[in-house]
Amino acid sequence: MCIFCDIANKKIQSEIIYEDADLLAFLDIDPINIGHTLIIPKKHSENFLNDENFNQKALILASKISKILLKEYDGVNILMNTNKAAGQEVFHTHMHVIPRIQNDNSISFIKTKKDNNKNDYIKQILKEGLND
Amino acid sequence: MCIFCDIANKKIQSEIIYEDADLLAFLDIDPINIGHTLIIPKKHSENFLNDENFNQKALILASKISKILLKEYDGVNILMNTNKAAGQEVFHTHMHVIPRIQNDNSISFIKTKKDNNKNDYIKQILKEGLND
Repeated sequence: MCIFCDIANKKIQSEIIYEDADLLAFLDIDPINIGHTLIIPKKHSENFLNDENFNQKALILASKISKILLKEYDGVNILMNTNKAAGQEVFHTHMHVIPRIQNDNSISFIKTKKDNNKNDYIKQILKEGLND
Repeated sequence: MCIFCDIANKKIQSEIIYEDADLLAFLDIDPINIGHTLIIPKKHSENFLNDENFNQKALILASKISKILLKEYDGVNILMNTNKAAGQEVFHTHMHVIPRIQNDNSISFIKTKKDNNKNDYIKQILKEGLND
């Protein structure tokens, strides 16, 4: 019932570039640029929030993948989307490693208006929550 | 000469929400949404490619920050930009933790055309480089 579990179990074929005991890396089927890679934990988790093993290891693998991509590309983005509102489409933890070409304009942003009251409130709950 | 070193050293004031021996987290001065946080290593590195200590710890802190933001927001993106072509503006390693509101359209993507030859080439150099 989970496409990335099926990829990890080799029930669905994918373009795997790396595998170890914990992680699998394969090419995204719908890449932003060619070489766009996904890193997933083999053991299912819905997102990274509570997957400490993934969180300790994923960026180390992402740095290795990025170094290779940077032989052919100008930059790299690391991206993780948690929940539908952030663009998560498959609810199995995954990290995007996205090669970039100068001026490809493939990722763009719109920034919000300032709101000092909201800023102070969010800052307060972050400080309190992180220093419990 | 590095604004994030100055923030880590408290030479420049910032809205710090968390600090430990290795990492500092503060609110982005130009947020995508309010609460947009940056996580940096206190010890300077230009990007994450060779910062193994950051790579082992940053996502663990990002998950804690994300859990708090998700009390107020619908989703969270984790983003790292390496090199100017990927949108890196400050050349001190940093991870964005970006809260998202359903349908805020604050991050958008353009995908590339398929190119089977380039795909096969990039796949090959990734497989070779990762399995050395």
